[in-house]
Amino acid sequence: MVHGAAPGHGSIQGVTSDFLAACRREPTSRTPVWFMRQAGRSLPEYRKVRAGTAMLDACATPELVIEVTLQPVRRHHVDAAIFFSDIVVPLRAVGVDVEIKPGVGPVIAKPIRQASDLDGLRALTAEDVPYITEAVTGLVRELGDVPLIGFAGAPFTLASYLVEGGPSKHHEKTKALMRSEPALWHALCDRLADISLEFLRVQVGAGASAVQLFDSWAGALSRADYLEFVAPHSTKILRGLGDSGVPRIHFGVGTGHMLKDFADAGADVVGVDWRTPLDVASRQLGPQIAVQGNLDPALLFASPEVVEREVTRILDEGRDAPGHIFNLGHGVLPDTDPDVITRVVDLVHERSAR
Amino acid sequence: MVHGAAPGHGSIQGVTSDFLAACRREPTSRTPVWFMRQAGRSLPEYRKVRAGTAMLDACATPELVIEVTLQPVRRHHVDAAIFFSDIVVPLRAVGVDVEIKPGVGPVIAKPIRQASDLDGLRALTAEDVPYITEAVTGLVRELGDVPLIGFAGAPFTLASYLVEGGPSKHHEKTKALMRSEPALWHALCDRLADISLEFLRVQVGAGASAVQLFDSWAGALSRADYLEFVAPHSTKILRGLGDSGVPRIHFGVGTGHMLKDFADAGADVVGVDWRTPLDVASRQLGPQIAVQGNLDPALLFASPEVVEREVTRILDEGRDAPGHIFNLGHGVLPDTDPDVITRVVDLVHERSAR
Repeated sequence: MVHGAAPGHGSIQGVTSDFLAACRREPTSRTPVWFMRQAGRSLPEYRKVRAGTAMLDACATPELVIEVTLQPVRRHHVDAAIFFSDIVVPLRAVGVDVEIKPGVGPVIAKPIRQASDLDGLRALTAEDVPYITEAVTGLVRELGDVPLIGFAGAPFTLASYLVEGGPSKHHEKTKALMRSEPALWHALCDRLADISLEFLRVQVGAGASAVQLFDSWAGALSRADYLEFVAPHSTKILRGLGDSGVPRIHFGVGTGHMLKDFADAGADVVGVDWRTPLDVASRQLGPQIAVQGNLDPALLFASPEVVEREVTRILDEGRDAPGHIFNLGHGVLPDTDPDVITRVVDLVHERSAR
Repeated sequence: MVHGAAPGHGSIQGVTSDFLAACRREPTSRTPVWFMRQAGRSLPEYRKVRAGTAMLDACATPELVIEVTLQPVRRHHVDAAIFFSDIVVPLRAVGVDVEIKPGVGPVIAKPIRQASDLDGLRALTAEDVPYITEAVTGLVRELGDVPLIGFAGAPFTLASYLVEGGPSKHHEKTKALMRSEPALWHALCDRLADISLEFLRVQVGAGASAVQLFDSWAGALSRADYLEFVAPHSTKILRGLGDSGVPRIHFGVGTGHMLKDFADAGADVVGVDWRTPLDVASRQLGPQIAVQGNLDPALLFASPEVVEREVTRILDEGRDAPGHIFNLGHGVLPDTDPDVITRVVDLVHERSAR
């Protein structure tokens, strides 16, 4: 168990973890902390075990997923593990021809352009992803008291890859399809919502203690477009997990103009990037929503004094939120020094101890 | 003169242009419209004249700059011309080793890392850029009643290229230097402010009727960081042009969290991207500031009905602003159909005629 390997990591035997307590707006012994992309290229041990294995093959190999998910828990003593996967994993599982090209991102062989293209997007079942069940089951056993966060992509971000055919700076094909062919758009997103919902249900069924829905690119939309074209589908996923009892985290970047809408989709916790101070965000979100964030990942490249000042500021700004999970405002950048990450975890724990 | 070539373009002989009137919050006969990157790759006539000439060489060739700047005025009958240039042109003029790599963007041979690197950033004088004076002078003659907007990059966006060494998604080196070495950062931005101010003064001196300061990447910052590390330098530029009498447009993307600060830097007009509706923006900005925007450039790829609906909505939302210049929320994307742009100009003019 990781717990044994990392005795100082902060969860207390028999007591609800600080991470889950913060998600539920309950008192914590100190502010919990984890990092988006904590499992990944910033870690030399990750680069070593991933060498020679394509990303999507790695995601379908339980022993590799378990090892990679555990690495940052062992090294940094974070308060939660995030399931190592990719948002396109469930798409590949239903037969979408997708690969992740190093240095590029997901590339889709046959982008979605018309209604008949939806035929390739059948429903996902647990039988399609036995490796996910196996990896989560193994992880929960290894993690002991450390909660595992399940992982899925939200419909807008998934749709953008499927419509553009790969990563996109401006999402022009996606936005054009969304606005010009709303029936096709909603049909596409409804299928994606079903797939992501089932992908999360599999993870929760196998023991994940919380889930995070990643809508990384939703901030590219106006609030009006988000509400009309995206929110109903993300709501289907988050509300669909309502009776599971696990906390639901809803994350996007550059979403300061629609934080409340991210909550209203059915979130218990809303991810806030560095553009919005946590006290400002929490006032908008109200007393029923916890916040997660919001250190700028670029600032992990600044001096130790700057990092320390930022951590202190963010803890101060998050103090009056109904719950605060310390995190970055976006994922760990690949060139980040892992020792800086460990130091941030220690700082968060030291400075927030009640 | 372009006026002769495009009799329907909207300015009236002997009367202040609608564009300048809107900048000054004076009545207009109809809403003026121009587009960021209207001169550029979306136009076949641009691709033809640019073929075989490197971008920065083109920017230093007056007859080419004149032709390229005029092309969209001729074709689309927009209400203003934007001087065809690049934000790194004045950097190259003071000796910075920079080139624009097609498909990449500006690449800096020796990025700024320490105080001694600032030695390469000497002050700009009009003698460094005779080709700019020549191009502006020629353009003003050709444009007749159509105003020419001068062009410069703001210190943060320029500094990001200089510190990163090229385009950057996360600006991590820039943000780290800004926060870790504030004295060096401010010295760098002060020099950049002087260079951009002089670059704009040269254009105004040669006859440009307005200026736009491009801070495309400032939206990557929190408001607190913007105010401390960037605003003083952009203010130096915009306020430095205060006695020139020309309207000053201040533009950024994803700056909804600091629109008022963009105005306070000394702008007459603030550029607003599609994430913030113009009525919301104008309420924040108050009665002394005109707005420019804010059609999502991605929506030029949508159906004609969608484009028409968007134009109408934006005109409605801009109606009560003290001044509204129709534009995109960011630049024209290279694959945009130029006929769609022409149609938007016509729609704006038809729908807003008083």
